[in-house]
Amino acid sequence: MLSKFFYPESVAVMGVSPAEDNLGKNVAHNLLDMGYQGQIYLVGRGAETLFGLPIYKSVSEVPGYADLATILVPARMVPAALRDWGEKGTQAAVVITAGFSEYGEERRDLEQEVLATARRYGMRLIGPNCQGVVNTDNGLCLPFGRYTKQTLRKGRVAIISQSGSVAGSVAYQLSDEPLGVSKFVSVGNKLDMKEVDLLPLLFEDEQTDVICLYMEGIDCGRELMEMGRRSPKPILVYKSNVSHAASRIAQSHTGAIASDAAVTRAALVQANMIPVDSLSKLMDYAKAFSLPPMKGPNLAVLSSFGGQAVIAADVASRCGLILPPIPASILENATRYQKAKVVKMSNPMDLGDVYQTEGYLSAFEAVVALPEVHGIVMLLPYVPEAGYAGITTKPMLRRIRELSAQSGKPVAFSFVSHPAVLRRLRDEEDLPYFTNPEEAVEALAASWRYWRRRNLAPQKVPRLKVDKEMAASVLRGAAGKLPALEAGRVLSAYGIRPADAVVCRSQEEAVEAARRMGYPVVLKVESANISHKSEVGGVAVGLRDKGEVRDAYRSMMNRLACRSLEAEVEGILVQRHHEGREVIIGARQDENFGPVVMFGLGGIYVEVFRHVVFRVAPLSWTEAEEMVREINGLAILEGVRGQGPLDIAFLVENLVRLSQLVTDFPQVKEIDVNPMIVFDQGQGGEAVDVRIIVGGHG
Amino acid sequence: MLSKFFYPESVAVMGVSPAEDNLGKNVAHNLLDMGYQGQIYLVGRGAETLFGLPIYKSVSEVPGYADLATILVPARMVPAALRDWGEKGTQAAVVITAGFSEYGEERRDLEQEVLATARRYGMRLIGPNCQGVVNTDNGLCLPFGRYTKQTLRKGRVAIISQSGSVAGSVAYQLSDEPLGVSKFVSVGNKLDMKEVDLLPLLFEDEQTDVICLYMEGIDCGRELMEMGRRSPKPILVYKSNVSHAASRIAQSHTGAIASDAAVTRAALVQANMIPVDSLSKLMDYAKAFSLPPMKGPNLAVLSSFGGQAVIAADVASRCGLILPPIPASILENATRYQKAKVVKMSNPMDLGDVYQTEGYLSAFEAVVALPEVHGIVMLLPYVPEAGYAGITTKPMLRRIRELSAQSGKPVAFSFVSHPAVLRRLRDEEDLPYFTNPEEAVEALAASWRYWRRRNLAPQKVPRLKVDKEMAASVLRGAAGKLPALEAGRVLSAYGIRPADAVVCRSQEEAVEAARRMGYPVVLKVESANISHKSEVGGVAVGLRDKGEVRDAYRSMMNRLACRSLEAEVEGILVQRHHEGREVIIGARQDENFGPVVMFGLGGIYVEVFRHVVFRVAPLSWTEAEEMVREINGLAILEGVRGQGPLDIAFLVENLVRLSQLVTDFPQVKEIDVNPMIVFDQGQGGEAVDVRIIVGGHG
Repeated sequence: MLSKFFYPESVAVMGVSPAEDNLGKNVAHNLLDMGYQGQIYLVGRGAETLFGLPIYKSVSEVPGYADLATILVPARMVPAALRDWGEKGTQAAVVITAGFSEYGEERRDLEQEVLATARRYGMRLIGPNCQGVVNTDNGLCLPFGRYTKQTLRKGRVAIISQSGSVAGSVAYQLSDEPLGVSKFVSVGNKLDMKEVDLLPLLFEDEQTDVICLYMEGIDCGRELMEMGRRSPKPILVYKSNVSHAASRIAQSHTGAIASDAAVTRAALVQANMIPVDSLSKLMDYAKAFSLPPMKGPNLAVLSSFGGQAVIAADVASRCGLILPPIPASILENATRYQKAKVVKMSNPMDLGDVYQTEGYLSAFEAVVALPEVHGIVMLLPYVPEAGYAGITTKPMLRRIRELSAQSGKPVAFSFVSHPAVLRRLRDEEDLPYFTNPEEAVEALAASWRYWRRRNLAPQKVPRLKVDKEMAASVLRGAAGKLPALEAGRVLSAYGIRPADAVVCRSQEEAVEAARRMGYPVVLKVESANISHKSEVGGVAVGLRDKGEVRDAYRSMMNRLACRSLEAEVEGILVQRHHEGREVIIGARQDENFGPVVMFGLGGIYVEVFRHVVFRVAPLSWTEAEEMVREINGLAILEGVRGQGPLDIAFLVENLVRLSQLVTDFPQVKEIDVNPMIVFDQGQGGEAVDVRIIVGGHG
Repeated sequence: MLSKFFYPESVAVMGVSPAEDNLGKNVAHNLLDMGYQGQIYLVGRGAETLFGLPIYKSVSEVPGYADLATILVPARMVPAALRDWGEKGTQAAVVITAGFSEYGEERRDLEQEVLATARRYGMRLIGPNCQGVVNTDNGLCLPFGRYTKQTLRKGRVAIISQSGSVAGSVAYQLSDEPLGVSKFVSVGNKLDMKEVDLLPLLFEDEQTDVICLYMEGIDCGRELMEMGRRSPKPILVYKSNVSHAASRIAQSHTGAIASDAAVTRAALVQANMIPVDSLSKLMDYAKAFSLPPMKGPNLAVLSSFGGQAVIAADVASRCGLILPPIPASILENATRYQKAKVVKMSNPMDLGDVYQTEGYLSAFEAVVALPEVHGIVMLLPYVPEAGYAGITTKPMLRRIRELSAQSGKPVAFSFVSHPAVLRRLRDEEDLPYFTNPEEAVEALAASWRYWRRRNLAPQKVPRLKVDKEMAASVLRGAAGKLPALEAGRVLSAYGIRPADAVVCRSQEEAVEAARRMGYPVVLKVESANISHKSEVGGVAVGLRDKGEVRDAYRSMMNRLACRSLEAEVEGILVQRHHEGREVIIGARQDENFGPVVMFGLGGIYVEVFRHVVFRVAPLSWTEAEEMVREINGLAILEGVRGQGPLDIAFLVENLVRLSQLVTDFPQVKEIDVNPMIVFDQGQGGEAVDVRIIVGGHG
């Protein structure tokens, strides 16, 4: 049934008039210009016919049934329009009309009425507040912006976009390239059909090689990730609306709520989607992903130009690509073609002194055959009118592309020539190229990152042996912040060892507890209502004997009394003070992606540098390891200044345990283990301060 | 005399033949195609004439004198060619021939012979290994790549490039835009004429508004900075060759040595030049700097499209631009033009529901007049064939540009349309535009950063009262690493207070020293040959009484003896142990920029995060302050976790003192104060460990 959105046998356009500013008219015009061959029904006012097609005054007058109804009538009339089509048996509708929840809360009821009407008739709908659907395969073209076969070119890249104009802009740019567009869906407010509903259609679509997503808000984050993992095709994702300023406008644009950019990025990469951060990057990557994949990190650069070669080498190094040495025999052979013998060659291979096409081709043939080369960037002149730069001929380019296809290795071109000349070459040869060497190298690096991740062994989520029942019993009926000892019990049940700790209610109890666990100890105030313990003087560390414990206890109580916090104090926690490195691990329920796990270097590193790493739970071992490896300042854990490495394996295991805990108990809204102390390699560590918030009352 | 490089009345091209792959022929062809009206003399072989001009067999046969000689003969024949022209009185030459020092050390003598020949005749030369000079003002066009008036368009952007092909690529791209090229110099190996020799010509050139530099190596770093400070025009600088891989190829390309990217970037910004890190950014910035300057951070975005507006807001926020609220009266007025009243407006101002040109124009007129708005980004449809998007008309665009010029505020356009349609608009209206909203916003942000820095009060370098004679007496005759106490005396002379320290040679001396300075103390091994003291057990901290000092002394000597380092030990340094925050300050002689000052957060921050801030000395107070403000983790100095702020003023002053020291004594190759301890605000600090290396023997 969903296929009716792309391959309907009949399409209705409702809201048509011959008026100059009528948008429905543009839709009808598009369908005709793009060569849609199915039945077209126009419904509207102001004339008997438009473009030779009859305009029906109402749905009931329409003689046939429509596979797909396109709705452009004013917002308040949309429910009735859907009802009319529903009565006819139409099961797919595109609601282009705007002015629903994105306009304001007062329109939410109207929007819900639209959804309810659709549901009543078993109808699926795209929109509202969108530009609808394009399928270049059959000429279906529902946007109210005007398109023709010239401005919207048939090709192999699909677009799903929350913004009609971004979809349009990407489609236009793809149409200027040999890439072209296969399908195009502007999903608008995503009231019913969302990206995750449309993606499976594109996975199966034989016209589509690469999928581009533009999103302002993410819903169904988990399903989206599942789609990413399942996708047989690369999915490029531009997620905007990451700033406060943008969220204001996005809210009134598609009603999207800003999401956590770091979590979103982590989730996309985890699910093997390809995040991009600009429209130009989206276009560059669409080019690269239309080539054979880069199956390894090794790049060869063949260049007519020293300058461009230097730039390519800089970028390769920045993007983590490797320039392997090119065997001497190949370099020597190329030298035979040099004219003045004034250029020494390596990789990048500077062919600036070679003026024969044959010299370029033989070098390329030899390099593409090297098993250690995974992709090639060609930096070439193209000046067809000049003898000198006649190096680059069309037959040479065709041969290179043939060898690229045969070898399954990507070749990215960038030319030095006048852009108008290059566009002519591109159009004549259907040859995509990159404007500058930087873009070519970066895009191949993205291809390699995608390929590497795609070919990781399938990620298995471990189920460690835990005492789930014990955790459940503590959490049962709990709400808000758990008392420290209960939080510790929940962690213990999942194998995360809390530091020895006893809540004491007198100096003597504290001294006795310290004696049992051994010095040095730490005292901390225990209270549900005091969040920043150290700021109110509620923490004392490094206490080495009972005298120090007594003094610290007394002065802590005095300080709290001065701030009138006495009544808040439930007791004083006594803990063994261990040496080690502080880190933070935590988890929370993200509103887009559900449970996520967080890791950061402890204390001042998080506070000052504000850098933490996220992953969506549940974590595989590999993902937990990646989290730790990804942190800025990893060297701190691996050992600096003559210190040995810390117990990274312990840390990884604890991330996996935390992941299992928040996955098992969605009612746990937030866990922070801050700090967790990690001891030397093989020595483990312990959770010193634990905060768990349950339910919605935290 | 230098003006002969751009405005020669006669030009010779030496190395011409009618052969298909002859490069001199291309130069002659370029001169004719570009309409050069001066006298052209061709020198070469193989025919009597070329393009109707006589080919002379030798320089002596040439009937006249040439203002500018272009040399394309093989490398070994270049000295003789220069001599022949020198004899004729020619004072300016462009040596295009390659195969000099960039090819290998064995060619360096030949290159020096070229220079000596030029000097002998008082001749200045550009090259060798270059593409020479273009001046679109008079049709001078010396590159051996082929150009015509169509592919190399007259305009207002100048290029100086160490790579001929990068110059060519930038020129081609500028020529596709209404920007165009004024002057173009490919400087190649920079044997004689360098960027700094050419820049003054461009400062005075009435054809040039914006200057682009592409550099692989920096020489004359100080002079370049001086040029940047003096420049009446924005100078965009793309410095490549920052990676190991690139330096290999750059070496054989132009002989350039990789430089420290962080120092280079700091130096460029300090001198009010504009660093860019890609060719596409260079092009975007050239566009933005051709508009009126952005004189403040406040941006208004007027958009037909919600999606593009969201993206623009994200980028504005990332680039530090502010989107000030647009007054309600303006929004209300725009609402009057809305059709369906389905879009709420703010800034970005979403005009998606306005379908009348008049609505756009009135909004623009009102917004550009707001004193609190410093620049505007317009995101518009352009579909001239459609009624709907006929919003954007040519008269509207002309009016907007007129108002931009009148108000002196930049307006950056980005359109949603098919690129071919936009290129037509651009060519018909001479209208530069940005491909996507990201580029438009980023480029205006760069314009604002430039304007702000340009209008800072002139930076005065303070001369603090110091004991220069004392420092000179210590440094006189010194070489290599100074002993700790002498290094401390040098710093003291410049007002940088070293921590109290005494070198002791027995336990008893150490105990006595500790008693005099007060506990706690630190012991450190003193040795010219032991660099990493803590790694060999040569450091003991936090010693609280004489017993601890004795124990530490003894066990340190034992550890050193175990490693057979006893003979290296000159003594044990006893220092008072002060509480405070560790930072690093330092200075060194950079090979491109001379003395530079460095600042970083201490110890583990530098070791692990490898982030330090550089400035070229001498520092103004403002520059020293900027250094401190620029550090990642500034919050550590400003006070975190309930600690008060540290003495930042002390730190700034010490950077200025260090700057004065390395400026006064160029023989000081390196100073590291690591750590410097900074105490609480108002309390100062002290240099704990000081390393000074003098001369070239370090």
